[in-house]
Amino acid sequence: MDFEFSPDALAMQDTLKKFTERHILPANREWHRLAESGTYPLDVIEPLKKLAKEAGLWNLFLPGLRDDEPGTRMSNLDYAPMAEIMGRIPWASEIFNCNAPDTGNMELLHMFATPEQEERWLKPILNGDIRSCFAMTEPDVASSDATNIRTTIRREGDQYVINGRKWFITNAAHPKCAFAIVLGVSDERDEADKHNRHSMVIVPMDTPGLRVVRNVPIMHHTSPEGHCELVFRDVRVPASNLLGEEGKGFALAQARLGPGRVHHCMRTIGQCELALELMCERALERRTFGKYLSEFSNVQDWIGYSRVEIDQARLLVLRAAWLMDRQGSQAARIDVSAIKLVAAQLQTRVLDRAIQVFGAMGLTPDTPLSYLWTWGRAMRFFDGPDEVHLRVLARNELGKAKANRGSTLPYYLVPEENA
Amino acid sequence: MDFEFSPDALAMQDTLKKFTERHILPANREWHRLAESGTYPLDVIEPLKKLAKEAGLWNLFLPGLRDDEPGTRMSNLDYAPMAEIMGRIPWASEIFNCNAPDTGNMELLHMFATPEQEERWLKPILNGDIRSCFAMTEPDVASSDATNIRTTIRREGDQYVINGRKWFITNAAHPKCAFAIVLGVSDERDEADKHNRHSMVIVPMDTPGLRVVRNVPIMHHTSPEGHCELVFRDVRVPASNLLGEEGKGFALAQARLGPGRVHHCMRTIGQCELALELMCERALERRTFGKYLSEFSNVQDWIGYSRVEIDQARLLVLRAAWLMDRQGSQAARIDVSAIKLVAAQLQTRVLDRAIQVFGAMGLTPDTPLSYLWTWGRAMRFFDGPDEVHLRVLARNELGKAKANRGSTLPYYLVPEENA
Amino acid sequence: MDFEFSPDALAMQDTLKKFTERHILPANREWHRLAESGTYPLDVIEPLKKLAKEAGLWNLFLPGLRDDEPGTRMSNLDYAPMAEIMGRIPWASEIFNCNAPDTGNMELLHMFATPEQEERWLKPILNGDIRSCFAMTEPDVASSDATNIRTTIRREGDQYVINGRKWFITNAAHPKCAFAIVLGVSDERDEADKHNRHSMVIVPMDTPGLRVVRNVPIMHHTSPEGHCELVFRDVRVPASNLLGEEGKGFALAQARLGPGRVHHCMRTIGQCELALELMCERALERRTFGKYLSEFSNVQDWIGYSRVEIDQARLLVLRAAWLMDRQGSQAARIDVSAIKLVAAQLQTRVLDRAIQVFGAMGLTPDTPLSYLWTWGRAMRFFDGPDEVHLRVLARNELGKAKANRGSTLPYYLVPEENA
Amino acid sequence: MDFEFSPDALAMQDTLKKFTERHILPANREWHRLAESGTYPLDVIEPLKKLAKEAGLWNLFLPGLRDDEPGTRMSNLDYAPMAEIMGRIPWASEIFNCNAPDTGNMELLHMFATPEQEERWLKPILNGDIRSCFAMTEPDVASSDATNIRTTIRREGDQYVINGRKWFITNAAHPKCAFAIVLGVSDERDEADKHNRHSMVIVPMDTPGLRVVRNVPIMHHTSPEGHCELVFRDVRVPASNLLGEEGKGFALAQARLGPGRVHHCMRTIGQCELALELMCERALERRTFGKYLSEFSNVQDWIGYSRVEIDQARLLVLRAAWLMDRQGSQAARIDVSAIKLVAAQLQTRVLDRAIQVFGAMGLTPDTPLSYLWTWGRAMRFFDGPDEVHLRVLARNELGKAKANRGSTLPYYLVPEENA
Repeated sequence: MDFEFSPDALAMQDTLKKFTERHILPANREWHRLAESGTYPLDVIEPLKKLAKEAGLWNLFLPGLRDDEPGTRMSNLDYAPMAEIMGRIPWASEIFNCNAPDTGNMELLHMFATPEQEERWLKPILNGDIRSCFAMTEPDVASSDATNIRTTIRREGDQYVINGRKWFITNAAHPKCAFAIVLGVSDERDEADKHNRHSMVIVPMDTPGLRVVRNVPIMHHTSPEGHCELVFRDVRVPASNLLGEEGKGFALAQARLGPGRVHHCMRTIGQCELALELMCERALERRTFGKYLSEFSNVQDWIGYSRVEIDQARLLVLRAAWLMDRQGSQAARIDVSAIKLVAAQLQTRVLDRAIQVFGAMGLTPDTPLSYLWTWGRAMRFFDGPDEVHLRVLARNELGKAKANRGSTLPYYLVPEENA
Repeated sequence: MDFEFSPDALAMQDTLKKFTERHILPANREWHRLAESGTYPLDVIEPLKKLAKEAGLWNLFLPGLRDDEPGTRMSNLDYAPMAEIMGRIPWASEIFNCNAPDTGNMELLHMFATPEQEERWLKPILNGDIRSCFAMTEPDVASSDATNIRTTIRREGDQYVINGRKWFITNAAHPKCAFAIVLGVSDERDEADKHNRHSMVIVPMDTPGLRVVRNVPIMHHTSPEGHCELVFRDVRVPASNLLGEEGKGFALAQARLGPGRVHHCMRTIGQCELALELMCERALERRTFGKYLSEFSNVQDWIGYSRVEIDQARLLVLRAAWLMDRQGSQAARIDVSAIKLVAAQLQTRVLDRAIQVFGAMGLTPDTPLSYLWTWGRAMRFFDGPDEVHLRVLARNELGKAKANRGSTLPYYLVPEENA
Repeated sequence: MDFEFSPDALAMQDTLKKFTERHILPANREWHRLAESGTYPLDVIEPLKKLAKEAGLWNLFLPGLRDDEPGTRMSNLDYAPMAEIMGRIPWASEIFNCNAPDTGNMELLHMFATPEQEERWLKPILNGDIRSCFAMTEPDVASSDATNIRTTIRREGDQYVINGRKWFITNAAHPKCAFAIVLGVSDERDEADKHNRHSMVIVPMDTPGLRVVRNVPIMHHTSPEGHCELVFRDVRVPASNLLGEEGKGFALAQARLGPGRVHHCMRTIGQCELALELMCERALERRTFGKYLSEFSNVQDWIGYSRVEIDQARLLVLRAAWLMDRQGSQAARIDVSAIKLVAAQLQTRVLDRAIQVFGAMGLTPDTPLSYLWTWGRAMRFFDGPDEVHLRVLARNELGKAKANRGSTLPYYLVPEENA
Repeated sequence: MDFEFSPDALAMQDTLKKFTERHILPANREWHRLAESGTYPLDVIEPLKKLAKEAGLWNLFLPGLRDDEPGTRMSNLDYAPMAEIMGRIPWASEIFNCNAPDTGNMELLHMFATPEQEERWLKPILNGDIRSCFAMTEPDVASSDATNIRTTIRREGDQYVINGRKWFITNAAHPKCAFAIVLGVSDERDEADKHNRHSMVIVPMDTPGLRVVRNVPIMHHTSPEGHCELVFRDVRVPASNLLGEEGKGFALAQARLGPGRVHHCMRTIGQCELALELMCERALERRTFGKYLSEFSNVQDWIGYSRVEIDQARLLVLRAAWLMDRQGSQAARIDVSAIKLVAAQLQTRVLDRAIQVFGAMGLTPDTPLSYLWTWGRAMRFFDGPDEVHLRVLARNELGKAKANRGSTLPYYLVPEENA
C-alpha cells in the first residue's frame, strides 16, 4: 500500500497546474463574459486547445489510447488528480479534450465503432474538431431505472427510425456539436428481455426530425454547451449508424459509465477543494462583531469538517480508479456507485458552508460558489440519484451477509436461558 | 391555551384561499411567461389588485391601520396564516399590497412619517399606486452586524448628501418603484455611539446620482422586481426627507423587523407546505423498480419528517406573532430570531427532499421547486444569517443561566468524596 | 388561538415546582444512593407520596376522574406542563402517582374494569398502595407491528392459561408490583382477524408459573423499578381476570397509548430543558484555550439550536394534548405519532450537545446527562420505533394527496410544448 | 499509489483472523460472564496470551522493536488492519499485548527509559507479566487543553512528591497493574512556559498515598480493567523514577499519541464493520409489516451509508499510518487529528443505525451494540474532544490560506465596475 503518486504522474499534475495558472485562469473572466452574453466562447477556447495539444495535455483520460490516435495515455488512477485540477474551472476540461460527454462518447466509439464510424466520428472528436452529445435521459420516466427508457429505434429497411423525447442532453447547444449517440428501445415486444432490448445509434445533429427544443436551465442556470431537451420525430439514419450490436445498448451504456464517474467525482473534489480555499481566504478577511470570521469556532468547525470530508472522498475515488485500472469497470461497479454517492453529496455540503462564510455575496454570480452549489445538487441526479446507488451498495452488503449467514452469532451475548 | 383560530380569522383564510384559486393560480403561467421575457407583469397584476381591494383583501398586514387608511385590519396572529397562503405563489403578496419591502416601509412611514411625508409617500403605497425599496445591506461589510454600515448621509445646509453602495435592494427594478428608504451613517465621528449614529432618509428613485447598477441574480435567478445593486454618488435630498430623528436610524431599522419576519416565515411555511403536497402527489405517480415512489420507506421518511418539521415551525411562528400582538416587537425579539432561524433552514431541507422525489425535473423551471430551494438558501441571509440568530438565542439562554446561577447544582450526583 | 395557560393551570405548575424544589430535589442524592445499592428507595418515596397527596398533587393525569376516586382532575393540556416538571427527576412521577405504566393501567381499569376488578386492583393503585406492570413487548417479534405478538392466552374451563415471554416490562422489579396486565393471543386460529385476536388479562405477580427472569439493563443501566424479562409457563388465572372483551386486546392497547405518550413526551421535554440549563451553566464555568466555553460560537450554536428545537417540540406536544382533550385519542392518533417521533429524537440530540459541553464528566454518573442520553435512545423504541411513526405520518399525508389528486397541477410551469 | 497490502501483511491478517475465530471468539461468552461477575477474566486471558506469543502474534504494534525485545515487528500501516481485527472484540488486544494504554507506555519507556527503568518496568510489560496505566486526565480542568493539568510533581531532595486527582485512568483496576506513568506540573512558577513545565514520573501502584477511589462507569458501563479515579496525596517516589527530562512531560505526552490514535481508530473501524455485519444479518432475519427489514429502502440507506462512511474512514486512517511510517508522528500530527475526529464520530453514527435495525434488543447487553454505541460516545472525548481536533484542522487550513493569500482571487467574477 502506498499513498504517493508516481513521479511521472506528479510531473503531469505540475504541468497541468502551471498551464492552468498561466493560460486558463487569466481567460476565466472573458469566458464567463462571453458565455453570459449568449456566445459560445470559441474565441477563448480554440487557441487554448491548440496550446494544450502542444503541451501534451490532450485526451489524457483515454487509457486504451492507440498509436494512431492523438494524445497522452494515463491510467485512471493517474488521470484522477488531473480531473481534480480541471474541475476547478467549469470550462477547463474542454481545453484538454477531456470534457463530458465527449469523453464517454470517445470511449464508446473507441471500443465499438466500425472502421467507417471511427473515420467519420471518432477521429474528429479525438482531434477536438467536433463535439458530440449522449442522448439517454428522458423526461417521462424515472431515470433511476434505465430500463424504463421509451424512445423507440425501429428498423425500417436499411434505416433506423427514431421517435421520442430526451432531456438533460449535455453539449447539444455547443456550436460544434455534430452528432448524438442515442439510446432507445429497438425491441418493443412485451416479452423482450428488459436488459437486451435497447440499442444505440449515431444521429447527426442536422438530421431532419431532430429538434433541440430548449436548453433546460438547471437551478436557473443556462450553460453555454447546454443541457438540452431534444425531440426526435421520425428521425431516419442509415442502419450502418448502429453502434455495437442491436439489443446491446444497455450493456454499452453500462460500459460507458465507470471512468466517466471517476472523472465527474474528481472534478467535484476539485470544486470542493476550491470552495474550501475560498472559504478560508474569505474567513481571514471578513470581520463581524469585532473578530475575523476565521476566529469563530463554528467557522473553524466548517473548515475542519470540510477538510476531512474532502480527503476521505478523494481517497475513495482514487481507490475506485485504482481498482478499475486493475480489474476493469465491471469489477469496480460497487465502488463506482459509492464514489458517485459520496462525491455528489459532498459538493452541496461543502459549498453550503463556503456560501455561509461569504454571506450574501455567496448567492451572487460574483464568485463560483453559487454555480458550484447548484451544480452539486444536480450531480445528485446525474448518473443515477443517490437512492439508486445506496440500493446497489446495500444489496451488495446484504449479499455478503447472506453468503456468511451465521457469522455474527458468536458475537451475541444472550443469556443461556434465553438463547 | 387554544390552538384554533377565531371564526373571523378562519373566514378570512377561506376568502383568501378561494380568491387565490379563482384569480391568481389561473394567471400563474402568464405571470411567469412575462417575467421570464423581461417585462414586469403589470398587466397580470393590476387588474388582480383591483379585485383584491374590492374583496377586502388589502393591506391585511398593517395592524395599526387608521380609519383614514385603506384596507383591512388583522392582528399579527390572524394575518400569519394569510401570509402562509400568499407565500405559495411568489408574486401573490403584491396583489394584496402585502409584499416586502413595501409592507415594512408602510409600517415605518405609518409610525414615523411627518404629515407631508405621509401625503407624498405613504398614501400612494397604501393605495398600491407606487412601490418602494429599503436600502440597508451593503456589499463591503458583514451584514450580520448592521452597525458596520458605511454609506454616509451628510447634512449640508438644508440637504442631505448620500454616498455609498447598497445591494440586494428588493423592488428597485419594479417599474413603479418611486423611492428608497436609505439607512446610512449621519454621524461619522469616531467617538459616535455605534447604535446612535445612523439615520434614514427618503430618496426618490429619480434623484440624480442614484443609479441602479444591476439586478443581482440570486443563485442564477433574476427576479422581475429585482434584488438590485445601487450606487449613491452625491445624491442630494431635502433635509425634510429625514425619516424620524437623526441618529435613530438603527432603532427604526430594528422596529421594522418584527412583523416583517413573521410574514417572511409564514410565506416560507406556505412554500414548504406546497413542496410537501407536490412531493406526495409526485410520489403517488412515479414508478421505479416496480413500485410507486410512495411505497419506498425512505420516501415515506422524507414525507413524515417534513410533516413534523413544518408543523413545529408553524407553531413557533404563530406563537411569536401572538406574543408580538400582546407585548410588541421588542418583547418578541428573541422569538423573532428563533423563527427566522428555523424557517429559513426548514425551507432548503424540505425542498431538497421534494426535489429528490421529482428527480431531474426538480432541477428545472418546470416546477416551483428549483426556485423555492434556491430562495430558501437566500433566506438564510436575509434579515441576518443563521449565526447571528443563534448568537442572539444563546446569549439569551446564557443570560438566564447567569441569573439562576447554582440552580442546576441539586441535579449533580458527584460522590461526596469528590464534591 | 392563545398560547397562555389558564391561571389555574399556572397555579398548579407553581405548586408543583415549589413542591419539587422543597421536597424532591433535596432527596435526590439519597434516592440514587439507595437505588444504586440495590434497594428500592421506598424510604424516600413513601413519605413524599403522603405529602404530595396532602398537597393535592395526586393522580393529576387522570382526566376522567370520578368523585369516588382520590386525586385532582386536570385536562391533558393542563397536565402536560406538570409532566414536564416531573420529568426533570427520573423518580418524581411516582411521588404524585403519575408514573408509567401505572398511569396507563389506571386508565385501562378506569375504563374497562368490572366492579370486582376495580375494587381489587384499581382502588389500591389509585391510592398508591400497590404498583403494576403492563406486559406487551416480546423479545422474539418486531415490536413495531403489535399484531405480531405471540404469547398465548387460552381459555380452559373457567380459567385462562398464559404461555409466552415478555421483556422491557417496566415496574416488574418494583417491590410493590402486585399485578401485570398481559396482552396475548386468545384466538390462535389462522383465519382470525389480526386486529381482533388478542385479549388482556390481569395476572397477579405471585401467580405460579410467572417468573421475572431478569431486570434487563438498558444501555448498561439497571433501573430499580425494572424493565424486566418475564416468562409465563402455564400461568393460570380465573376467567374473571379478563379485562374488557375477549378479542379486543388490541383495541384496548391502542386506547391506552394516547395520553401516555403525551406524558412521556412532556417528561422528555422537561429532561431536554434540564440538559439545556446544565449545558448553559457549565459553559459559563468551564474555560479552555483562554475563554469560557460560553464564548465559543460553536457552543453558542448548540445552545441556540437546543432552544428552538425544544420550544418547537413542546408546542407540538401541547397541541396534541389540546386536540386529545377536544376530540379524543383516536382523533389525535397522527399527532401522537408525530410527538412520539419528535420528542424521542430530540432527547439524544440535545443531550449529546450537553455532554459535549461537559466533557468526560458527561460520561459519568456524576450528572444526569449519561442517564438521560441513553434513556433518550431507548425512547426511540418504546411505543414504537421512529420508522413506524414516520410510516403513519407519511400514509396520512399520502392519503390527503390522493384525496386531492390534481391539486398541485396549477403550480407546474412546464412549457406548453411539453405539457 | 497502491491500495493493496503486501503479501506478508495479508498473511499476518489471515493468521490473526484465524486465531481469533479459533481461540478468542469461543471464549467471548466466558470472558463476559466473568467480567460481569466482578472477576477480571485472567483465567480466560492468560492461556490465550501464551498461545498468541507462540503464534508470533505479540507486541505487533511496536515499530521500533529491538532484537532484545520479544515480539513481532510491523509498520504502523501493516499493523493497522491487525488493530481493526482485534477491535471487534473489546478484550482481544490484551491477548496480543497490544492493548492501550500499555502500548503507549511501552513506546514511552522504549524511547525514554533509563536502563534501570527498562529492566524494572519495560521488560515485564513487553512480556505481558504486568500491566500499567497512564495518569493524565483530571476532573477539574478542561482536558481539551492539556496545559491546564494541575497535579503537582515537586522535587524534594532525591524524591518527587505528587499531589492531585486523576480520572478515566484505564487499566488502574486491572489486577496486574503495577505502575502508573503520571503527568504533572513540576515547575509551578507563574512565569514558567506552559509547554515546558510538566514532567512524567513512574509511580508504582502500591506507593503509599496513591488511592484508586473508584472505577468510573462510562455511560453506566463499568469495565473490568477500569477507567478509574485516582487520588495522589503526598505520594513519594525516588527521583530516578523521572521519565525523560524534567519539564519535558508535555512533549513526551505528545510523542505518545500518534500511533496510539491509529490503533484506537482502527479498532473503531473494526467495531463499525462488525456493527454493519450484525445489521445486515439482522435485517435479513427480522420481519415487520409483511417484509424483511432488508427490503425496506430506509434500512438499505443505512446500510449503504455505513458502507461508504466506514470505507472512507479506513482509507484516511491507513493514509495517516503510512505517513507516520514515512515521516514520523510529528509530520502526521494533522492527519492524526483528522482520523481521531472522523473515527469517533463514525462509531456512534453506524452503531445508532445498527441499534435501530435491532429494535429494543439493541439496548440490551445481549449484543455488542449497546457497549459499542456508548463507547463510541466516550471516544469523542478520549485523546481530546472533537472540537480540539476541528480547531487543529482549521488552523492548519487557515495557515495554508495565509501563506497563499490572493490565490483565490482569479476565481472571482465580480463585475469590473464593482471590483
